[in-house]
Amino acid sequence: MTGTRQLRELTNDEALHRLGSVPFGRVVFSQNAMPAIRPVNHVVDGGAVIIRTHLGAALLRSVGVVVAYEADAIDADTRLGWSVIITGYARRVQEAGEVRRYEEMLQPWVDGAMNQLIRIRPRMINGFELVEAREEVVVT
Amino acid sequence: MTGTRQLRELTNDEALHRLGSVPFGRVVFSQNAMPAIRPVNHVVDGGAVIIRTHLGAALLRSVGVVVAYEADAIDADTRLGWSVIITGYARRVQEAGEVRRYEEMLQPWVDGAMNQLIRIRPRMINGFELVEAREEVVVT
Repeated sequence: MTGTRQLRELTNDEALHRLGSVPFGRVVFSQNAMPAIRPVNHVVDGGAVIIRTHLGAALLRSVGVVVAYEADAIDADTRLGWSVIITGYARRVQEAGEVRRYEEMLQPWVDGAMNQLIRIRPRMINGFELVEAREEVVVT
Repeated sequence: MTGTRQLRELTNDEALHRLGSVPFGRVVFSQNAMPAIRPVNHVVDGGAVIIRTHLGAALLRSVGVVVAYEADAIDADTRLGWSVIITGYARRVQEAGEVRRYEEMLQPWVDGAMNQLIRIRPRMINGFELVEAREEVVVT
């Protein structure tokens, strides 16, 4: 049996670096006033997360909606790993050069899914690492 | 390079079975009118998801809040795997016998985290499998 773990907070730079090291995560938003979540692949570019998915009418109007984005890599056996959550406005990428560039960087994994190219620029970054419990680690 | 994938919908039974086959997922809720997500370990019991975490004041009042819960197992290399999302009311488990039983089944992975024992009974179950693209599979 594995022991319990402690949380070590990641700095913003560490957190964005981890996020950029994995190909997919989960976008979290409100849909008809209900919490919704959708797995999607991503790239990190210029400190922002870029995804291709359809988040509904608010984004079509370019208003932007507040979303969260989460990625993690946690080993179920050792219970070691990390999770990063960013929160910020999701806005459509519409500038033609950026659209071309990101569409090349970011191939949809699923056929035929209607999608928008979306940038999530973090207002808040929360990252933690699960480390083996030791007394000198601060529990948050 | 791996080809694109198609989505095959899982039945409710298949989806709950997959959810029960992994030890952790992510609970999705609203916090100060913002979308929030937290990784947490779970068990599936009697068709409901049981977790230990702190979702805030609404649950302390036993009112219940609508949350989503997601787990997945997607291989970044093959891009094959599955994701299951349930949506439903989160309510505190308060009956003493159940509390004892679930506290035994569900050891927190993290030291010192204040937690509540919470049951999420699904009102909606959405599960899909990423399968290799073939023409006879219906894209949803």
